Amino acid sequence: MSQQNSKRPLTALQKHTKKKVTIRLKSEIEYKGKMSNVDSYMNLIMTDAEELHEGKVVANYGRVIVRGNNVLFIKLENEL
Amino acid sequence: MSQQNSKRPLTALQKHTKKKVTIRLKSEIEYKGKMSNVDSYMNLIMTDAEELHEGKVVANYGRVIVRGNNVLFIKLENEL
Amino acid sequence: MSQQNSKRPLTALQKHTKKKVTIRLKSEIEYKGKMSNVDSYMNLIMTDAEELHEGKVVANYGRVIVRGNNVLFIKLENEL
Amino acid sequence: MSQQNSKRPLTALQKHTKKKVTIRLKSEIEYKGKMSNVDSYMNLIMTDAEELHEGKVVANYGRVIVRGNNVLFIKLENEL
Amino acid sequence: MSQQNSKRPLTALQKHTKKKVTIRLKSEIEYKGKMSNVDSYMNLIMTDAEELHEGKVVANYGRVIVRGNNVLFIKLENEL
Amino acid sequence: MSQQNSKRPLTALQKHTKKKVTIRLKSEIEYKGKMSNVDSYMNLIMTDAEELHEGKVVANYGRVIVRGNNVLFIKLENEL
Amino acid sequence: MSQQNSKRPLTALQKHTKKKVTIRLKSEIEYKGKMSNVDSYMNLIMTDAEELHEGKVVANYGRVIVRGNNVLFIKLENEL
Repeated sequence: MSQQNSKRPLTALQKHTKKKVTIRLKSEIEYKGKMSNVDSYMNLIMTDAEELHEGKVVANYGRVIVRGNNVLFIKLENEL
Repeated sequence: MSQQNSKRPLTALQKHTKKKVTIRLKSEIEYKGKMSNVDSYMNLIMTDAEELHEGKVVANYGRVIVRGNNVLFIKLENEL
Repeated sequence: MSQQNSKRPLTALQKHTKKKVTIRLKSEIEYKGKMSNVDSYMNLIMTDAEELHEGKVVANYGRVIVRGNNVLFIKLENEL
Repeated sequence: MSQQNSKRPLTALQKHTKKKVTIRLKSEIEYKGKMSNVDSYMNLIMTDAEELHEGKVVANYGRVIVRGNNVLFIKLENEL
Repeated sequence: MSQQNSKRPLTALQKHTKKKVTIRLKSEIEYKGKMSNVDSYMNLIMTDAEELHEGKVVANYGRVIVRGNNVLFIKLENEL
Repeated sequence: MSQQNSKRPLTALQKHTKKKVTIRLKSEIEYKGKMSNVDSYMNLIMTDAEELHEGKVVANYGRVIVRGNNVLFIKLENEL
Repeated sequence: MSQQNSKRPLTALQKHTKKKVTIRLKSEIEYKGKMSNVDSYMNLIMTDAEELHEGKVVANYGRVIVRGNNVLFIKLENEL
């Protein structure tokens, strides 16, 4: 396992700033885009984000701030 | 990415004060208007706000204070 | 925008004490009346309040204390 | 407005100790009786309380302690 | 009203240790038995407890610890 | 009542470490097994645990950590 | 019982870092994979994770951060 993977979850998330993520909310909706920034509560800013319902793009957002308590998971994408 | 986009979420939100936002609540309802002010809990004052249900305006508010724990996301609009 | 509108949400709410408000709860029920007082948790005392279900008055309250965590939003009315 | 009405919500509630209240819980159930005591979390002791479902008395309680987080509102009755 | 009834809710609850209670949970289920002990979060130990669904006994517990956040109310019984 | 029963709930729970318990979660699912350890939030490790849906065993777990906030109650079994 | 099993739940979880786990969320969905790291809130990073709905694999994740408050339980697998 890489050194990066053994960091604490919030540190690893912080390190991924300005990279691509897909977040899923408790309500099952997903947002895919660049994570401009994030804090320890998992509040996060996404830029150029797509909203997906069951895998289909339903909306586009230039810049959106998601309140952390709604987050189910954050998938870290490898692409920039 | 602009310098502004790399700020922490709550700082970026604070910087957007007096600009247009669309907020979506957990209940799916949206409010679109000017964000007069906001605090770190995401409590926010909106002025000249429209309430939208599935994209249709259903009410208008001169000045309304939304309790932060209901917020799903806040979309930062580019227009003043 | 007026000076008053640029205050933090809880300060603006505090300034509105003894004026008319309409509050909507998470359960969609609304209360319209005078906000006698409010604290930072958004617990509030209302006097001469009407309870509205889908816009229709269903009950009247001389004095009622609403627990803040149930609040969705508080609309600040201009009339005294 | 009376001096009493301009107190903070929890102070006003405290002042009403040993008087009649009707409390409504989030589940819509209501309890009507004497509020023997209350704390800042809105935990409260009621004595000689009636439980009402849609306005009908369904049970009587000599002494019952309600956990504050279930409270929607507390109506302060004028009678002792 | 007796002196005992004017205590704060958690103090009154504490004083009732080792006496009979009926607790109702948010899920409507009730437990009736001796309250061996309780803390300020309303976590409580019950001994010789009956579980009731709509008034009917469905299970018996020698000793059970209920997590306080599930509690709706605690009825204090007069009998030992 | 035994001396042990009059301990505070979390202390009594702590004393039961390495003994049999049945825990019920808010979702009604039950887990029966040995409680290897527990903390004040009621996070607990169970070993050799059975998962029960409406009394029927549906799965077995060698070692499982249950997050405390999901717990409804913990029944303390007398057997080791 | 082994020495390891008598550790506090969060310590035992910490010790299992870089080993296989199956986590179940409140929404019943399960994730099976390597737990790269975890914190005291049960936020955790999983690598090479499968998402399972009713036992069937529906998605694969290279690296995903799950927000701890969604966790129902974490099953510690014996295999590396």
